[in-house]
Amino acid sequence: MARSSEATRHNILSCAIDHAAKVGLSGLTIGGLAEATHLSKSGLFAHFGSKEALQVSVIEAASERFVEEVVRPALKAPRGEPRVVQLFERWLSWALQQSAGCILTAASFELDDQPGPAREALVKSERDWLDTLAQAARIAQREGHFRADLDPEDFAFDLHGLMLSTHTAARLVRDPSAYDRAKRSFSRLLAASRIPPTP
Amino acid sequence: MARSSEATRHNILSCAIDHAAKVGLSGLTIGGLAEATHLSKSGLFAHFGSKEALQVSVIEAASERFVEEVVRPALKAPRGEPRVVQLFERWLSWALQQSAGCILTAASFELDDQPGPAREALVKSERDWLDTLAQAARIAQREGHFRADLDPEDFAFDLHGLMLSTHTAARLVRDPSAYDRAKRSFSRLLAASRIPPTP
Repeated sequence: MARSSEATRHNILSCAIDHAAKVGLSGLTIGGLAEATHLSKSGLFAHFGSKEALQVSVIEAASERFVEEVVRPALKAPRGEPRVVQLFERWLSWALQQSAGCILTAASFELDDQPGPAREALVKSERDWLDTLAQAARIAQREGHFRADLDPEDFAFDLHGLMLSTHTAARLVRDPSAYDRAKRSFSRLLAASRIPPTP
Repeated sequence: MARSSEATRHNILSCAIDHAAKVGLSGLTIGGLAEATHLSKSGLFAHFGSKEALQVSVIEAASERFVEEVVRPALKAPRGEPRVVQLFERWLSWALQQSAGCILTAASFELDDQPGPAREALVKSERDWLDTLAQAARIAQREGHFRADLDPEDFAFDLHGLMLSTHTAARLVRDPSAYDRAKRSFSRLLAASRIPPTP
């Protein structure tokens, strides 16, 4: 019974992620989700209790999916620069899909001024991602790939900016060079982070 | 009469920008704006005609404000690197205010998948801004400040990314170092864009 309820919840959350990708996280309500999924409003209330709890669950589910598809596989790459590269490459494929990636990014700008549990869940997810990037840079320093005077948090800031710019170029402006620009920008960031060859 | 109607419209749009900063551009409706501003719904309908036309007017008004406060004063700086610096500095002060800047940025992620006139207005505003940044880089090349092999559109892509990352760091994560990180990241971008000193 508990397992089947867990599976139901998982399916509902998948639908909710897709639905939120269309209407935005602020637009996600139990009533709207009921209509979109043909599930009963009372059943959804039984699962989530409130619109706010639904939003938090959707952010957590989208973050988990992101970790499963991007972070976890990338952490299997060798420590140092190869792992940084895998984090970027997997993020890039993720970002170019029409998937949960955009919910989290969109919500980062949607909810930045709206205090509450949804915002808190999003801040946690964002911090985890920035920490993952900074930690990968730190390991690349220890492995002797990146310069010792590189600030790992600055590296995460720059890499995250590159990702946000790719998002806008690809999805809003529909710049046909977005993908190539992202790759070139990442190459420049790597080159600037590496220990320069001794002359 | 025409002038007074123009002034009224201007005032309404100022309120609408503030209101959209709270509810998001998708959440902006004539009914909601009427409630927030204590103006009559029929009066607002007379001014804008539809929710969609209201959203387009708000995007255009916010873009105009951005051009007035950021772009136009920066264009008074000397051509080349000083102008690029002014564009960045003025953007940074703008971004750190609780103002229309966040409407345009938030809407870029909110509306990227929602076809329609609001999205078109936003794409135009975004393209203008990226073109302004690329053009400033191009002039810096002509003035002999930036490397001839720099791709001005890549420069705009990187600078825009830095700005989006600053937005997230300052407004979502509330990183107390967001401002300093943005400054350092901009210095790195400038250093990488300049003609290297001959050894």
